[in-house]
Amino acid sequence: MKIVVLKFGGTSVGSIDRIKNVAKIVISYLKKRYKVVVVSSAMSGETNRLVKLTKKISKNFPPSEYDTVLATGEQVACSLIAGRLNEQGHLARSWQSWQIPIFTIGNYSHSRIVKINKKNILNFLRKGGIPVVTGFQGINFENRITTTGRGGSDASAIMFAKFLKAEKCIIYTDVDGIYTTDPRIVPKAKKIQKISYEEMLEMASLGAKVMQPHSIQDARLNRIDIEVKSTFKNLKGSLITKKRNISNKNIIRGVSFTKNDAKITLIGVKDRPGVAAKIFEPLFRNSINVDMVVQNISSSKKETDLTFTIQSDDLSKTEKLLKKNKKVQFNNIIIDKKVSKVSIVGVGMITTPGVTFRMFNALAKKNINILVISTSEIKISVLVDRKNLKKAVDVLHKEFKLDY
Amino acid sequence: MKIVVLKFGGTSVGSIDRIKNVAKIVISYLKKRYKVVVVSSAMSGETNRLVKLTKKISKNFPPSEYDTVLATGEQVACSLIAGRLNEQGHLARSWQSWQIPIFTIGNYSHSRIVKINKKNILNFLRKGGIPVVTGFQGINFENRITTTGRGGSDASAIMFAKFLKAEKCIIYTDVDGIYTTDPRIVPKAKKIQKISYEEMLEMASLGAKVMQPHSIQDARLNRIDIEVKSTFKNLKGSLITKKRNISNKNIIRGVSFTKNDAKITLIGVKDRPGVAAKIFEPLFRNSINVDMVVQNISSSKKETDLTFTIQSDDLSKTEKLLKKNKKVQFNNIIIDKKVSKVSIVGVGMITTPGVTFRMFNALAKKNINILVISTSEIKISVLVDRKNLKKAVDVLHKEFKLDY
Repeated sequence: MKIVVLKFGGTSVGSIDRIKNVAKIVISYLKKRYKVVVVSSAMSGETNRLVKLTKKISKNFPPSEYDTVLATGEQVACSLIAGRLNEQGHLARSWQSWQIPIFTIGNYSHSRIVKINKKNILNFLRKGGIPVVTGFQGINFENRITTTGRGGSDASAIMFAKFLKAEKCIIYTDVDGIYTTDPRIVPKAKKIQKISYEEMLEMASLGAKVMQPHSIQDARLNRIDIEVKSTFKNLKGSLITKKRNISNKNIIRGVSFTKNDAKITLIGVKDRPGVAAKIFEPLFRNSINVDMVVQNISSSKKETDLTFTIQSDDLSKTEKLLKKNKKVQFNNIIIDKKVSKVSIVGVGMITTPGVTFRMFNALAKKNINILVISTSEIKISVLVDRKNLKKAVDVLHKEFKLDY
Repeated sequence: MKIVVLKFGGTSVGSIDRIKNVAKIVISYLKKRYKVVVVSSAMSGETNRLVKLTKKISKNFPPSEYDTVLATGEQVACSLIAGRLNEQGHLARSWQSWQIPIFTIGNYSHSRIVKINKKNILNFLRKGGIPVVTGFQGINFENRITTTGRGGSDASAIMFAKFLKAEKCIIYTDVDGIYTTDPRIVPKAKKIQKISYEEMLEMASLGAKVMQPHSIQDARLNRIDIEVKSTFKNLKGSLITKKRNISNKNIIRGVSFTKNDAKITLIGVKDRPGVAAKIFEPLFRNSINVDMVVQNISSSKKETDLTFTIQSDDLSKTEKLLKKNKKVQFNNIIIDKKVSKVSIVGVGMITTPGVTFRMFNALAKKNINILVISTSEIKISVLVDRKNLKKAVDVLHKEFKLDY
């Protein structure tokens, strides 16, 4: 059987007309002689509506009940899709996770799919049926409903592709693929035809919102090719695949960036072992994500300066936590509210010398000051003033020949 | 174990504040040392919202998917109640019908509960837990979700009371009990303390909207006492119970009525065997409910006049069906759009002579013309002009001493 798993996100099923459009897409694959498995999210807005209800009932709403409430969103969307396919003359039915079942482990709201009982689904496919299965959820070994966290429907689709040995897994969404950078910033941004899991992981972590990093990681571990396509336009999408499927014509695959970062520098921190841990512990405990960290070399005064970045939203909370932290002494805090991180990503840089130099040189020529630098094997990130963001992305996009 | 089943209707859980109130009611029973099983409907408005979605997708939405969509309403309501009880420090959890399971047979949307696996529920009760179970639904033997039709949560509560051998089944709703007649029409209407299943069945069929007839019938067959109470006011409700638990001080228990009936008379119908069946068959096929039927004695001309009543909403459809019915010939149709049926109900009338006379006499004294008469063992119904409705209910309520 030539199986394709089609996953539709919340905006793709966000209205009655859009659900009808989804049915049309599904039917187009039947015509290409695919057996189709549909994985759907809840209609956009529905999950937020349900979350609000639970919050109004209690600030400590039990996670098991929270997941049970949220899971209804996908249940409704799947039945509506199946209903539409039936009306169009196709054998289709919805499957709730307990009907399959999809087994998960781990905590409620952050569970992980470990097993999908594929027997009934395969039988239904053999009969010519179209199973429409709920994304984002499963049951645990206590027979209770669990969810896999936001963006979890992608992970569901990837696991179905794995267990059913599907030929393809296609993520239908509201963007038409993965771009070399955000086209709203750089109009010359180009759609990437193929990108490796590793590059996509970096791009996602660096602000490309198409897929959650953990879903990409699932696909990478299971060697499942993922195509990202638009639900609304009939265009070729982008393929996320193994490195060796990709030509290395371009050293750099794309330029990512974050918009809303803030930079904090602690001046004159007493430089004792474990001081960084003491600074960051209260931040971690309060779910504040610390990104780039730089520590200057200690002077003879046994003092050091520590710089790090966080999301702007977390700034006031972070400031408070730092000031009331009795375990750490420092002379002053300097805050820069408006900074942005710009990154170049590409597996090609491993084998190409001089990428770092070219990046810094290109920025320097445009008088863009680099505040902080951080690197990995396949990406280089720099922190710049927010006012320089567009200029920086532009010049790097051009420097690494992504414009054409 | 002293078990009580508490059922909450859609208006009772219609908002966050109302759900918090439901939790308060549940906790009051714990204080009386009851083990409580909660059965809940969907939040009011939710079922209609979901029905609309399915209708927009397709006029022939598959019944199996329809039930799956609708079942989410109760799933959300039950989790919200369980969440609130948890926050108030009580061990509570929601149970979906597939988790219990609740087995049903029959068609989708009109299924009937045949078995409830009580083991897990009883274990949870023994541990001091409060199970909050979804009303209105179950699963069938194909492991798919089914619903039991509107008002089906009452039937669910009654079946839980039966299988768990509950001491009490209490239906919490937006009225505070069953009245001798509608208090909006007769301000002197009194709450009935106790009413027999049989009387309640007649009252329900005749327009008292508190419970669906089939739920009352379920309770009657299983000998389960039902109390109907207000969710919003802490008042004694009405008890529906066996005849022998009830004093027969009053001959008549109540006066029921329907507001929106229409009367159709077919003049000069050819009087051949089977003609009535031929007239009514197309109406039944179109789900038009024919209520009172009277046929005049045939004249020597081999013609007869046939009178029957239907709901006003069905009038134009009925007229069309009658006129295009080629199998029946008649000379003329007379339609009376504004009639009402007024009924007196009471098991006492079986053993009390002269009830019919008293009814007709009381109406005659007020110059109320009786258009059609229909009787059963425990009720007498008459059809009157709608303009006489209030006067008729008033005089009968007084005549049978229901005013005090």
